[in-house]
Amino acid sequence: MSLSSALLEQAVDQLATLPGIGRRTAMRLALDLLRREQHEVVRFSDAIRRMRDEVRFCEVCCNISDEAKCAICRDPNRDEALICVVEDIRDVIAIENTRQFKGRFHVLGGVISPMDGIGPDDLNTRQLMDRVMPGGTREVILALGTTLEGDTTGFYLNRKLAEQGVTVTMLARGLSVGGELSTTDELTLGRSIADRKPYEQSVKR
Amino acid sequence: MSLSSALLEQAVDQLATLPGIGRRTAMRLALDLLRREQHEVVRFSDAIRRMRDEVRFCEVCCNISDEAKCAICRDPNRDEALICVVEDIRDVIAIENTRQFKGRFHVLGGVISPMDGIGPDDLNTRQLMDRVMPGGTREVILALGTTLEGDTTGFYLNRKLAEQGVTVTMLARGLSVGGELSTTDELTLGRSIADRKPYEQSVKR
Repeated sequence: MSLSSALLEQAVDQLATLPGIGRRTAMRLALDLLRREQHEVVRFSDAIRRMRDEVRFCEVCCNISDEAKCAICRDPNRDEALICVVEDIRDVIAIENTRQFKGRFHVLGGVISPMDGIGPDDLNTRQLMDRVMPGGTREVILALGTTLEGDTTGFYLNRKLAEQGVTVTMLARGLSVGGELSTTDELTLGRSIADRKPYEQSVKR
Repeated sequence: MSLSSALLEQAVDQLATLPGIGRRTAMRLALDLLRREQHEVVRFSDAIRRMRDEVRFCEVCCNISDEAKCAICRDPNRDEALICVVEDIRDVIAIENTRQFKGRFHVLGGVISPMDGIGPDDLNTRQLMDRVMPGGTREVILALGTTLEGDTTGFYLNRKLAEQGVTVTMLARGLSVGGELSTTDELTLGRSIADRKPYEQSVKR
């Protein structure tokens, strides 16, 4: 694809660096931006630039924040002794949306992935170990994805945290709420049988 | 979705204004940008801003250009008497990639769409009529999409151009090259029967 404008070409090249955006889509996005008012495009490009320049990471939990400590770490009503470890900020949002969790978070910024050359030291694991105290931390919940990388990360963190004498838990795996048995994959269904719970205990929630 | 950072929120809001990008995807794109080096993000946002600020439209054919006249209109080897009318610059690229066309283009910048409030005056139709001369223009090819809007635009332009005594043609409609009859939709198949051509004439190409 050769374009009649080098400026358009550069914009398409840049848009195509975004994950999941091919050159064809990048072209569509560039043409859409080109049709907008100049001040709208200034607002668009400034919002992206300012985010990168000014956003900070919470010094406690590594969550994204506009201040030194994020809103969750500043909230005195949240249980400091309960830490939920997640891969990234999207997981924080997902868990916050459940309104089920009143503790604090720790954002790893990724998962261990030897294939991609990402080891424990590339993640915010040191900050987690510094935060966790045998007396002060009651429980660490590993809320990681159920992928190979998520499991590897969980395995590593559990070992490190157990050394410190902290209780480590992980999210339940089983049927989706609203899910049919016949459409549940066999690994999940097998897990839900192995992890079955007393009826009374499950239903009361 | 409420985020812990207003800066991130603004960037996500802006990315979500792009066509086909929902808030979930916008979030993924924002996090990807956030992970990059600062100078990379500067290059990204500058490319978009410069495109909008500096790109011009060719004063002859309304194609995107970095100069007053686009490279195609400046090329003396291209047939000035043959004008191919297209909806937008992506169509110019698609036709250029076929290497079958040696005339000039005219970019309408859209199609007539009463539903979206787009009439002939919102497109570059006046520039087309100003360009077309009964003596100088041999043929105008309407290379528009086969949608209701494309057909409406073709109908309108054909009438206007015929008034000027110019020969107007349109792209052939029929089977895709490499297409199976059984998987071709019935409108296209019907059209390909109605528009059948003498065997000798079709095969020689």
